[in-house]
Amino acid sequence: MSDPNASIEYARSQADRYLAELKELVAIPSISTLAEHKPDMQRAAEWVAGQLRGMGMEHVQVMPTGGHPVVYADWLHAAGQQTVLIYGHYDVQPADPLNEWVSPPFEPTVRGDNLYARGASDMKGQVHAFLKALEALLRDGKLPINVKVLVEGEEEIGSANLGPFVHGHRDLLKCDVVLNADAGILRPDQPSLVYGLRGLAYFELWVYGSDHDLHSGMFGGSVHNPAQVLCELIAGMHDANGHITLPGFYDKVRQLGDDERASLAQGAHSDEEWQRMAGVTKLYGEAGFTTTERLGARPTLEVNGLLSGFTGEGQKTVLPARAMAKISTRLVPYQDDKDVENQFKAYLAQHAPPTVRWDLRNLSSAPGVLVARDTPAAHAAGEALEATFGKAPLFRLEGGSVPVVSLVQAVLGVDSILMGFGLPDDNLHAPNEKLHLPNYYRGIEAYIRFFSDMAH
Amino acid sequence: MSDPNASIEYARSQADRYLAELKELVAIPSISTLAEHKPDMQRAAEWVAGQLRGMGMEHVQVMPTGGHPVVYADWLHAAGQQTVLIYGHYDVQPADPLNEWVSPPFEPTVRGDNLYARGASDMKGQVHAFLKALEALLRDGKLPINVKVLVEGEEEIGSANLGPFVHGHRDLLKCDVVLNADAGILRPDQPSLVYGLRGLAYFELWVYGSDHDLHSGMFGGSVHNPAQVLCELIAGMHDANGHITLPGFYDKVRQLGDDERASLAQGAHSDEEWQRMAGVTKLYGEAGFTTTERLGARPTLEVNGLLSGFTGEGQKTVLPARAMAKISTRLVPYQDDKDVENQFKAYLAQHAPPTVRWDLRNLSSAPGVLVARDTPAAHAAGEALEATFGKAPLFRLEGGSVPVVSLVQAVLGVDSILMGFGLPDDNLHAPNEKLHLPNYYRGIEAYIRFFSDMAH
Repeated sequence: MSDPNASIEYARSQADRYLAELKELVAIPSISTLAEHKPDMQRAAEWVAGQLRGMGMEHVQVMPTGGHPVVYADWLHAAGQQTVLIYGHYDVQPADPLNEWVSPPFEPTVRGDNLYARGASDMKGQVHAFLKALEALLRDGKLPINVKVLVEGEEEIGSANLGPFVHGHRDLLKCDVVLNADAGILRPDQPSLVYGLRGLAYFELWVYGSDHDLHSGMFGGSVHNPAQVLCELIAGMHDANGHITLPGFYDKVRQLGDDERASLAQGAHSDEEWQRMAGVTKLYGEAGFTTTERLGARPTLEVNGLLSGFTGEGQKTVLPARAMAKISTRLVPYQDDKDVENQFKAYLAQHAPPTVRWDLRNLSSAPGVLVARDTPAAHAAGEALEATFGKAPLFRLEGGSVPVVSLVQAVLGVDSILMGFGLPDDNLHAPNEKLHLPNYYRGIEAYIRFFSDMAH
Repeated sequence: MSDPNASIEYARSQADRYLAELKELVAIPSISTLAEHKPDMQRAAEWVAGQLRGMGMEHVQVMPTGGHPVVYADWLHAAGQQTVLIYGHYDVQPADPLNEWVSPPFEPTVRGDNLYARGASDMKGQVHAFLKALEALLRDGKLPINVKVLVEGEEEIGSANLGPFVHGHRDLLKCDVVLNADAGILRPDQPSLVYGLRGLAYFELWVYGSDHDLHSGMFGGSVHNPAQVLCELIAGMHDANGHITLPGFYDKVRQLGDDERASLAQGAHSDEEWQRMAGVTKLYGEAGFTTTERLGARPTLEVNGLLSGFTGEGQKTVLPARAMAKISTRLVPYQDDKDVENQFKAYLAQHAPPTVRWDLRNLSSAPGVLVARDTPAAHAAGEALEATFGKAPLFRLEGGSVPVVSLVQAVLGVDSILMGFGLPDDNLHAPNEKLHLPNYYRGIEAYIRFFSDMAH
């Protein structure tokens, strides 16, 4: 273990510069799902690479993939010490609906303790936090371990090209453990470590009726409306208890034991707190499980989008030719993400009426994951969090999906430390995304301590 | 009865000029539901007024309403003869989806026997046909009856301002019968007269969950997805037999007798023909009724549009804050169009879960209508059609809605002759709307004969 205090002192003295830099990064609209932002993706990757070069990391490269590029760098001069691969992503979600943002999504704005911008919390703030931790340690020659940095640009669209990249660069990425900064904590003052993430299988479902839109007066009553059929199909995907009805969907779902249920309940948000953060008047979920269990330990199926017919102002009496839904499932260990497409198709084959045609497109998939809690790296992370926050971390399951965690488990044979600082009310993927700045600064300190603690 | 032959000869000699003029009219994008087309609405009204002035109609006015203007004109010099009020509308439906048009919607293009353009069949072609019939008769002083012309600009959005207009101008509009040209026939060579139309009640249904979009991983499983709730509500609006489940919806529905069922079956399209025109692989509808009955004699509920969450390319893992459906009901006599909103609200109050809020907006409503079939005007129309097509017309119920028919029945106390020439495969309200040009020309002749036959 190396002494982190000088580096922490230095980091504290640089707070203003750090924030100014972070604003530069979040101002780049690196929306990975929209083709028109391709130049911004390159720009964000180069920005991260520039930071890595500036602090003295080596072999800094913006490496092409089948999609958006990956930024790689390393520093391997701590002979005999462990190698930590640090993971982040520089891409962000789309910003619409734009009119609901108080300040524009790519004009980062501080209000109170928060920095508002798309990507501030998910996850440019956290990428920048580990960059600044490395910078502070390297500055005085205090980095006591070997590090590799991997920052991808496709996390928000399922990391489809990261698999081939990791497979193709096993030697380059070889490491003892991964630090994955794409995670969150329960409350501003309550640190936590994530030991499980849900997987994701994302689909577009199309229902086709006529080969063209029809007049609803002239044809209404004689043909099956594809928007109605789509609604009927979606309605049937949950039963009255909130269980998902895709055949075989629960076959491999991990059951919770009493110990784990008790551990998850520790420090969990009350339903009242969660309801307030969700901004709803009443919670809802699968019968037989607590809110915390529903979020982290149970799979879900959500409609992410609906589109059919006329949606402009006023009225158009059209009987639409087709209807589309974006539908995604969040998967728990040990559900197989590849099975879900077949389960979905079996459901549709069983329930779609013969009056329409349908098409199911699987846009991405990744399995859920569990990581070991009792490892030296996990202990180092726990100590770093306790020293920074003055409280021991809780262990939690997170409802979101970070495809790279299962990928590095499978290909590199290493577990990940899921240590990040996002908050449940950061409006991830929604208007007015924010980063809680006190925890951004605590995050830098916690990462400095973690790297220091990893040295033997 | 006056001899129409000279006027018909003249009209035949003007075919090329008529088509050139009609192209001018359909090139004006007079989309009543879209605010940005307000100047086009005025332009279309002025174009119609210009035609009326040019042919010698009197008191030509573009009259303001609470919405788009009404064009009025008259010619009242046939002492002792009946007065016919001729109705049409100059507004059209929106043209989207634009990319499905073979030629642009407002660049009228002749291919084969058809003129392709938005509004060509619904109903600028038919408005222009009665204008040309009047022009031909007036040219030689052969118009043997009194006529008033009323062309509105809000039919496609429910004619909300026509009610106050007709109420406020009872004397101006006083007449013996209305000729309503907004109707269709069964086949190009089979004339028909419409004796009933369905009414329309059009709604927007909004379902609200959180006050902002949520991350589907972070919150999915713990809140009720408004898109899912909307789908469940819509799915429940029909039972397994295709009956509509709004409470009380069928209470006042007119029952069909055996005679009427037999009459409707006469000349009806076969299911194979109808399936081809609808462009579907299989028809669908309410159990216990034929396709023709489902279309004209039974009410329907259709989803006209769906919108929620993320609908762009790729994926966004959002749990939407809200979901919207455009839903309209087609009503038969003697359903009360004002009752439907309450029936709809009763359904929602009964079925919407307590985890969401909902809002139902009634965008427009108009009742269904039946007109008397055994009147001198109906006989005159029948004779005009038989002389023009060489075949006696069939009587039919039409599935579409023309709010003015019930309005003039209620306010002016007169029935309408529903004589128009649209075809079921004209792609009304859909891409590639077309007008069958041979019937446009036959329509001009049939109107000349009708006005002539109306003289005693």
